[in-house]
Amino acid sequence: MPTIYLASSSPRRRELLDQIGLSYIVITTEVEESLPPGLSPVEQVIMLSRRKAGAAAPKLAEGIVIAADTIVVLDGQVLGKPANKIEALAMLERLQGGIHEVFTGITVMELSGSRVLSDYERTEVQMRDASRDELMRYVATKEPFDKAGAYGVQGLAAVFVAGIRGCYFNVVGLPLFKLAQMLKKLEVDVSNYWR
Amino acid sequence: MPTIYLASSSPRRRELLDQIGLSYIVITTEVEESLPPGLSPVEQVIMLSRRKAGAAAPKLAEGIVIAADTIVVLDGQVLGKPANKIEALAMLERLQGGIHEVFTGITVMELSGSRVLSDYERTEVQMRDASRDELMRYVATKEPFDKAGAYGVQGLAAVFVAGIRGCYFNVVGLPLFKLAQMLKKLEVDVSNYWR
Repeated sequence: MPTIYLASSSPRRRELLDQIGLSYIVITTEVEESLPPGLSPVEQVIMLSRRKAGAAAPKLAEGIVIAADTIVVLDGQVLGKPANKIEALAMLERLQGGIHEVFTGITVMELSGSRVLSDYERTEVQMRDASRDELMRYVATKEPFDKAGAYGVQGLAAVFVAGIRGCYFNVVGLPLFKLAQMLKKLEVDVSNYWR
Repeated sequence: MPTIYLASSSPRRRELLDQIGLSYIVITTEVEESLPPGLSPVEQVIMLSRRKAGAAAPKLAEGIVIAADTIVVLDGQVLGKPANKIEALAMLERLQGGIHEVFTGITVMELSGSRVLSDYERTEVQMRDASRDELMRYVATKEPFDKAGAYGVQGLAAVFVAGIRGCYFNVVGLPLFKLAQMLKKLEVDVSNYWR
């Protein structure tokens, strides 16, 4: 079985790979996150996942690199990670009571061959109405700060999410079903890692 | 804030309450799980959640008891926990490639007052096609054995789930959004537990 590298510093992505029983090595890279204007959400997450995989590849000899990028989109506008409490509260006030989308772009790159696959997953998230007081208590927990859209569905914010449509793990940051499908195209069957 | 009791021995339900920051005490009770014939899935899970809460209540003085029961339903037929490898494989072969439903009944019971609320959540789960070999490798991990429908979406089986419609945490065993709403009716705001 080939060595698998995860080009991500996200602890949530590591937990998700752990969940499905993959063995992997974490590679941390820095990539330029600014993008040309006019890209769709899908184009943005795919481009960034390609950059992340591409930045990791030159450091490595053989195996497969996995990279991903996740964004939250409300009414066509991308919400990134909040810079401070005020931004976090503003994002949450916009998201509460409505439906938004989460996109993750994934790239899997074969180091010893020439195959590079990119794909994406899209999930709709329905948030319930939430009061300003509740959202302020949520921001005070600091959970929003390293998360696109200022919330973590896998954390306290679960109580704000009435339901989703699509892949849950996409909302956490790495769509596991899609990833497993992409790895299969590179002849890596995740179930072969199970013990 | 009232003391909260979780009438469940499920480690997954405990993890879910931990996730949303609740403080609680686990109460283990034995209840008769056999049901009168002819009940709908919703009636079944609500009745069992009421029995579980009712069995815990006499042991306790005051506070709130939470109890839940989760089932998997395929084409109107309830799938319980598999008794052995053969049953687990048979259930997974039936679920693969199709859509099934997960129902959880929840009861929240006020010990010092007279209020008892019961409600349920329903989620649709789309499973991808899976080969017999993959499913056998999954059964060999023993993950299916203490789980309704013979899979754990929060575990290795994530790679079998193409998408869901509704509350993800319902599929794990305790719908957090619904639970928080029910607790609010008893004047318990989950966000008051956050630190």
